[in-house]
Amino acid sequence: MNSRDQLTGAMADLLWERGYAATSPRDVMARAGVGQGSMYHHFSGKHELAIEALSAVTAEMAGESSPLEGEGSPLERMKRYLSSPRPGTRGCRVGRMTQDPQVVRDPELITIVADAFDTMLGRWEQAITEAVAAGELPASIVPGELARTLAAVVQGGYVLARAKGEQGPMDAAIRGAVALLDAAHSAVATDH
Amino acid sequence: MNSRDQLTGAMADLLWERGYAATSPRDVMARAGVGQGSMYHHFSGKHELAIEALSAVTAEMAGESSPLEGEGSPLERMKRYLSSPRPGTRGCRVGRMTQDPQVVRDPELITIVADAFDTMLGRWEQAITEAVAAGELPASIVPGELARTLAAVVQGGYVLARAKGEQGPMDAAIRGAVALLDAAHSAVATDH
Repeated sequence: MNSRDQLTGAMADLLWERGYAATSPRDVMARAGVGQGSMYHHFSGKHELAIEALSAVTAEMAGESSPLEGEGSPLERMKRYLSSPRPGTRGCRVGRMTQDPQVVRDPELITIVADAFDTMLGRWEQAITEAVAAGELPASIVPGELARTLAAVVQGGYVLARAKGEQGPMDAAIRGAVALLDAAHSAVATDH
Repeated sequence: MNSRDQLTGAMADLLWERGYAATSPRDVMARAGVGQGSMYHHFSGKHELAIEALSAVTAEMAGESSPLEGEGSPLERMKRYLSSPRPGTRGCRVGRMTQDPQVVRDPELITIVADAFDTMLGRWEQAITEAVAAGELPASIVPGELARTLAAVVQGGYVLARAKGEQGPMDAAIRGAVALLDAAHSAVATDH
């Protein structure tokens, strides 16, 4: 890794471990094992470094293949994505940023977060639209709304798991969502 | 207000605006308009002050009457509680704390947060248990799981709203959850 990548990686780790406000340029240099000359050769300061670090994290997430777009019927893919392993007490690297007051007030940083959510919500909406079209979910479901509901279950699951310091609340929130989807599915199945 | 209450109120505001790491004892004294003598007469430092401030915030929330325990059938109460006004971009004072790395690592602070969530989840679970018993939701619903799902929708709604800086994602997440509950309800209604 070159010093630029080392600095970006160190900033991503520190954003995650300490938050934006509590991370100083000095912390980043120490973690990266890189000196001040190199730091200010590559970056004007903490803000520019955060933009690059957060962009790298969200680009990596957006590039991962999502079960929402994989094999199986739309409802099966939705349930598989919900049920994929998520370490609840670690939290979401992107979602966490929305609770960092300095990040939310920074138009450039929060736009990176918003764009990452939009990508994920677009995948949800597509799968839900297909599930309704296939008669797996009732026509009363509005895909753009349910997309936000199910993304919120995951994000809120992290909040509940971190409050307790346990994985249990995340898993329970997911199982409850899957059970509701199954119940909604059986409502269509009965109508037919 | 006496100086103790002024200090507690200032700490609650700053926890909310800046987070725990970014708030210094000096900031709290300045906001409270209280001197160092008074500060260290009442509190040993920032940690003790945060315990008292966070306890005051959660006690106030626990004391508020919840639509979950009000009038109407259990499912009506659940839907009314979900749909009650929530300024999404402001976020939840308690939920926010789970994303503050220093708070999560502090056993005393995170316990206050966990207890507040337990109170709220207990109310959810009670209402859902009643809804299943009344035949408003299918018997396949596990109250302790759905309680966490619906609490997560609210907490995740804040995350999505703050990412976009808009109320829309919170309202959409709530409407999607209400539509799923209605679909699950119609599944039981059809069975009968």
